Amino acid sequence: MTEGTKKSSSSTPNKTTSDIASKLNGLQGWAIGVDLGGQSIRGAWVSTKGQIFDPIKWETKVSDGKEKVLSRLVQLVDELLKNPPPGCEPSKDLLGVGFGIPGIIHLKKGLVIQSPQFPDWKRFAVYEKLRKKIKFPVFIDNDANAAALGEKMYGVCKPYDHFVYVTLGSGIGGALFLNGDLYHGSMGLAGEIGHMTVDPQGAPESTGNRGSVELYASGSGFQKILSDLRERHPSISANTPEELYELWKRGNKLPEWEAVEKVFDDMGNALGIMLANVVNTLDPQAICFAGGLTHAWKAFSRKMIQITMERSYVARHNKLRILSTSLMKNSNFIEAGVVGAASLVFVDALKKQASIEIKTVKAPVAAAAPALKAVASVAI
Amino acid sequence: MTEGTKKSSSSTPNKTTSDIASKLNGLQGWAIGVDLGGQSIRGAWVSTKGQIFDPIKWETKVSDGKEKVLSRLVQLVDELLKNPPPGCEPSKDLLGVGFGIPGIIHLKKGLVIQSPQFPDWKRFAVYEKLRKKIKFPVFIDNDANAAALGEKMYGVCKPYDHFVYVTLGSGIGGALFLNGDLYHGSMGLAGEIGHMTVDPQGAPESTGNRGSVELYASGSGFQKILSDLRERHPSISANTPEELYELWKRGNKLPEWEAVEKVFDDMGNALGIMLANVVNTLDPQAICFAGGLTHAWKAFSRKMIQITMERSYVARHNKLRILSTSLMKNSNFIEAGVVGAASLVFVDALKKQASIEIKTVKAPVAAAAPALKAVASVAI
Repeated sequence: MTEGTKKSSSSTPNKTTSDIASKLNGLQGWAIGVDLGGQSIRGAWVSTKGQIFDPIKWETKVSDGKEKVLSRLVQLVDELLKNPPPGCEPSKDLLGVGFGIPGIIHLKKGLVIQSPQFPDWKRFAVYEKLRKKIKFPVFIDNDANAAALGEKMYGVCKPYDHFVYVTLGSGIGGALFLNGDLYHGSMGLAGEIGHMTVDPQGAPESTGNRGSVELYASGSGFQKILSDLRERHPSISANTPEELYELWKRGNKLPEWEAVEKVFDDMGNALGIMLANVVNTLDPQAICFAGGLTHAWKAFSRKMIQITMERSYVARHNKLRILSTSLMKNSNFIEAGVVGAASLVFVDALKKQASIEIKTVKAPVAAAAPALKAVASVAI
Repeated sequence: MTEGTKKSSSSTPNKTTSDIASKLNGLQGWAIGVDLGGQSIRGAWVSTKGQIFDPIKWETKVSDGKEKVLSRLVQLVDELLKNPPPGCEPSKDLLGVGFGIPGIIHLKKGLVIQSPQFPDWKRFAVYEKLRKKIKFPVFIDNDANAAALGEKMYGVCKPYDHFVYVTLGSGIGGALFLNGDLYHGSMGLAGEIGHMTVDPQGAPESTGNRGSVELYASGSGFQKILSDLRERHPSISANTPEELYELWKRGNKLPEWEAVEKVFDDMGNALGIMLANVVNTLDPQAICFAGGLTHAWKAFSRKMIQITMERSYVARHNKLRILSTSLMKNSNFIEAGVVGAASLVFVDALKKQASIEIKTVKAPVAAAAPALKAVASVAI
């Protein structure tokens, strides 16, 4: 009755029930994945292998107001339904429609509480509205959660049971994948790491906080950074982080290079403090970056990794991997979001499948064989 | 095939498998719980109902060195074994011995990597050494993890499936209880929230970080704070946080009250930034405080809660409860630690019980009835 293994105790690191990515092979059917962004709505048919069919990209037109944007989401799904992939009969083969939505989402109530890209979405009942207009099962989640799931199913995070996904876009999104599943917290609000304080005296923000990492390392933060920079250095004309990165690449040949370098150093420093805090809290195996600003990786990552290691005892002991997405092959059509939204559908189907197997065990006539299968799929 | 419930999607907040606290009633047996601290070692027999028998409290004597401290832990267990509670036959009824150990513990390897209270414990193979000398199953975990588990089983956290436990002692410990179980992370290092950066320009620390919350809100942090305060205000003689709290209680009758108040405001501010970051990341139902400095609650909590709410969008939307332990009835014998260490044993026994029930399903002769039971206990 002694603990015979090398494992230290009952309290060894958490184990995963079963790897969802590896179970996809046994799943039949299709999903529609829709990724809503501030600039564009992207949607496509997605196979369980993660292949994309009939990709559509429409302008979001935020200024049209929330009801119009919502109708556009529904229209895009209708458009896709008219043109299913070869061999797919929607009424039979479509498992559901998944939506990745930016912003703070109260999943328990199906509300978008606030979304930086959609100023008029305040406690907006997105789920209920979509569910009423789409005659297939509807799944919503925060876009970072959806993309993290896509990365687990089809991307660079396949091998990991514990990782944190960070999207550097207009805002900074975060998703937690813990113990082999997305972790949503008590209300579905977990993963809001972009609001982490990295400079307590920093500028005030619309969320009520001040000095959060978004001020230094997101698209919206860069608007202010760039206008300040252009004011101090009129010869710098960069209007976007991408343009600033192009200047950075010219190195110290550029007269204002130090000022440009400082912007990316500040970005790396802020992200480093955020990561150190996250890693000290969660001890993940990996951190995975995605989103537009990740393209400036060479400019900010050295500082970011240096600060993470300096400030996180845990990162120096847990063999942390810092990765970037493998699902952004085509800059015109960001696959991660769409494949991730479709993954919401697939994961639900896999969970239902497991639950049906369990129910088979319940039936008195079902004996040893199906029971074994159920046991294998739900190991505690 | 539509999602008929009010729940928003597959991606609703995580559900708990089954509540461990409520399953304790079905468990037979005893545990020995041992709580190691920098000042004292406390141990006792603990019943599954959380009752304590034969409590022992010895001095730790850190300066004797790690091997002597370890022998003392083993001696304390031997002492308890000589005097079991009425009706308990150790060889038959003792499920195991649990140890709560302060410091950063690499559970996967069973090592204490670093411990502020034990400067000579560097990559110290505690688990292996205890296991060799104790002929009952041995369980170790970080003391905060153990205490959090005790709080879930017997204390104020019983109703919660998602909470963060914070111990304000010599250092600041943290434990994450997520989805109905302790979350240890990939290596067992999760929950090190005391090392969170709350002042990026703050003083450098032995961990390599600077400006962590421990500098402002832990016993070790208060040593420096108090010596600075005494230097600036020679009339202040407080040598401990408790003594300073006694001064604070005198209010503005005290000539140096503003300086005293500022110390506790700084403490509340630092803890508020930490909590806001933690709540934004994890969306827990509750935060539970324990440890000696919690006694100064009235002095620091108002500022702490104010800053948490200002800086955390999530805290303003998820009905966060901020609590303090219900397991510190007797200041001479802190029960939380001992009961928590014993809970490590009980939780393991409950998990093994569930696993035996599952195995019963596997056996071809076992038919519907036990299968039903297994299903109930592992619902996905």
